[in-house]
Amino acid sequence: MQETSGWQTLLINVHIATMSENEQGYGVIENGAIAISDGKIVWLGEASKLPNYPQEQVDVIDGGGRWVTPGLIDCHTHLVFGGSRANEFEMRLNGASYEEIANAGGGIVSTVAATRQASKEELLAGAQQRLSALMSQGVSTVEIKSGYGLDIETELKMLAVAQTLADSNPVTIQKTFLGAHALPKEYSGDADGYIDLVCNEMMPKVAEQGLADAVDVFCEGVGFNLAQTQRVFDAATKLSLPIKIHAEQLSNLGGTELAASYQALSSDHVEFLDEQGVKAMASSGTTAVLLPGAFYFLRETQLPPIELLRKHGVSMAVATDTNPGSSPLCNLQLMLNMACTLFRLTPLEAIKGVTINAAKALGLSNVKGQLKVGMDADIAIWNIEQPASLCYQFGVNPLHTLIVNGQQVVEN
Amino acid sequence: MQETSGWQTLLINVHIATMSENEQGYGVIENGAIAISDGKIVWLGEASKLPNYPQEQVDVIDGGGRWVTPGLIDCHTHLVFGGSRANEFEMRLNGASYEEIANAGGGIVSTVAATRQASKEELLAGAQQRLSALMSQGVSTVEIKSGYGLDIETELKMLAVAQTLADSNPVTIQKTFLGAHALPKEYSGDADGYIDLVCNEMMPKVAEQGLADAVDVFCEGVGFNLAQTQRVFDAATKLSLPIKIHAEQLSNLGGTELAASYQALSSDHVEFLDEQGVKAMASSGTTAVLLPGAFYFLRETQLPPIELLRKHGVSMAVATDTNPGSSPLCNLQLMLNMACTLFRLTPLEAIKGVTINAAKALGLSNVKGQLKVGMDADIAIWNIEQPASLCYQFGVNPLHTLIVNGQQVVEN
Ligand SMILES: [Zn+2]
Ligand SMILES: [Zn+2]
Repeated sequence: MQETSGWQTLLINVHIATMSENEQGYGVIENGAIAISDGKIVWLGEASKLPNYPQEQVDVIDGGGRWVTPGLIDCHTHLVFGGSRANEFEMRLNGASYEEIANAGGGIVSTVAATRQASKEELLAGAQQRLSALMSQGVSTVEIKSGYGLDIETELKMLAVAQTLADSNPVTIQKTFLGAHALPKEYSGDADGYIDLVCNEMMPKVAEQGLADAVDVFCEGVGFNLAQTQRVFDAATKLSLPIKIHAEQLSNLGGTELAASYQALSSDHVEFLDEQGVKAMASSGTTAVLLPGAFYFLRETQLPPIELLRKHGVSMAVATDTNPGSSPLCNLQLMLNMACTLFRLTPLEAIKGVTINAAKALGLSNVKGQLKVGMDADIAIWNIEQPASLCYQFGVNPLHTLIVNGQQVVEN
Repeated sequence: MQETSGWQTLLINVHIATMSENEQGYGVIENGAIAISDGKIVWLGEASKLPNYPQEQVDVIDGGGRWVTPGLIDCHTHLVFGGSRANEFEMRLNGASYEEIANAGGGIVSTVAATRQASKEELLAGAQQRLSALMSQGVSTVEIKSGYGLDIETELKMLAVAQTLADSNPVTIQKTFLGAHALPKEYSGDADGYIDLVCNEMMPKVAEQGLADAVDVFCEGVGFNLAQTQRVFDAATKLSLPIKIHAEQLSNLGGTELAASYQALSSDHVEFLDEQGVKAMASSGTTAVLLPGAFYFLRETQLPPIELLRKHGVSMAVATDTNPGSSPLCNLQLMLNMACTLFRLTPLEAIKGVTINAAKALGLSNVKGQLKVGMDADIAIWNIEQPASLCYQFGVNPLHTLIVNGQQVVEN
């Protein structure tokens, strides 16, 4: 009875999709149980093998025969932003040209202006709505990027809002500094000068204030080139910050390969990635983050190289990319369906993409994304008849209960 | 004061998108008010023009400066069914052939078997979840088709479940008899024999029991041919039941033109419709029901002829087509986004598609789909900054309150 003396919570009467890397497929344990102590999983297995435990001190949750998975992880979002781009969306569908939209203040410029103008409270209010929506879908860990400030003050403000979300919500928030998201108009024609600002002023301040868990760059013809990207990576490396990249979304610049040479946590989008890039990811252990929402919303036709990623054993994650320009779709359950429907991921791959592999993309694989002893007790309980249902049906929210760090935080 | 003496409820402090056919665009009234009596709209206009009304008897709802639209209408669903097709979905993505899936009991056959086997209570439980999801999205009228029974008993059971939903929920349910949905295996090789059963036995029973507001046929190479479709239409006409059709989804058989010659309420899917068919719809006043969820889920590439429908002034509706095989997507807000993103409808067209034009597709234009005096007081109150936001953003449910027949039925 010794090893059970610290048990605080026991979840019984559940089928468990552990998503454990040590198991086949979903890592299923039918008729299982999970014991929790101090927010961690301390025992997990078939209910028939439950050891004796101190019943008087343990809070028992009856899962009612439901399925459980690790709490979902949305490993790529731009959740904090000001304004709305509904107007631009409507103008475009009404036939306005890019010039007309630009003249009306549209595009990322409008989000940057609105984000600069917004108070911390205003940004927080919008982001909290989106975060609450994700939580209601079973999401227990969310990554949030900066990148709509493009000046020191606003980049810090965005990350501070993300930090406030982290402090005031029961879920885990990972903050990513994406100063190199786009060129602000003040630096028009001087991208290198802006990268100086990012590397020499923004990033040290961000690091000093503990406002970033990682650094990201938008490496693209319309973003920053390889040399500029490399300078950002060097600065991040000096500050011991892990790196991520938006790459190969619209063309193949080689950003992924560069990022892999820095042991990047993830390369995201990757529609135009070639086999050389895939191999580089495989050797560096970099995760490919697939963003089917942006693919859908931008009506892209170039599919990410799923077969090559499979062939070389690159981990694939799936995320919402929630943002006002290219993926105003704040629903990770929908991304499971889109990953299967549009990218032909199997349900197993898609669910790995929002659990174990999303944890990898955030450098959290030692604590998140799998149900096994020693991991954080982030557990989603679902009204589904089999794991694949999470990917197949959409609209009726199947979440029954979300447990984060051993506490029930959402109950439907 | 005379004309206001019967006022029961007054909604104030709202911007109104009336969607009225008499107005331009969204039919916007800023700073408006709506008076309700006995579930009907009895006054609507600018708040500054509100007449005196008996304040002691009127229940005032403060809209807080929010936007309101007509309650949404989902005019094409297969909401009642047994079983799940998650397994088949997973098998296909794991590379199973059609034969293997068929051998495992997949396809519509599996839904028919599960629906026949299910008790009324089981069917009701599943359908209620889906209906509740739609209501939470702002949907106040839902069409529900039979068509997974394909025998007298089960077709009646499905429609009876739809009737029970109607009796036990505050929203409006329209029931459509779709006996001619697929050929049951008992009639393999004898489609004409099955159509005999549909016309001579099923339909009269359905009509006698008042279980259908309309009759629908799946006219397609894999469904029923033109001659069989016509026999169903003739039988419906004899029973004074209006007709609808699933047509031109996978090929152009001319079903739409045939339906138009019977003054069909709607022709649904219509991806392969040609100009002749569009013209036929225009002259008969038949509504084209667009189903972007099925288009997305089946990864179709043939777009419906939107430009031709616009050119000839055919009303376009938008619906979920919620069903376990080709559109397991029970969310009408998502369909607004998909109609714009995939079909390039303007937000105005998409919102018309789930209000005024969806009402037309159900033969309800005299009571539903517009906010104007005399209409049912079905009103959705939204947390949005402009109507187009309903189409642009997805994930954070913008519904604040749903009012049906003057009663608040959903409050978020
Ligand atoms: Zn992004
Ligand atoms: Zn249908």
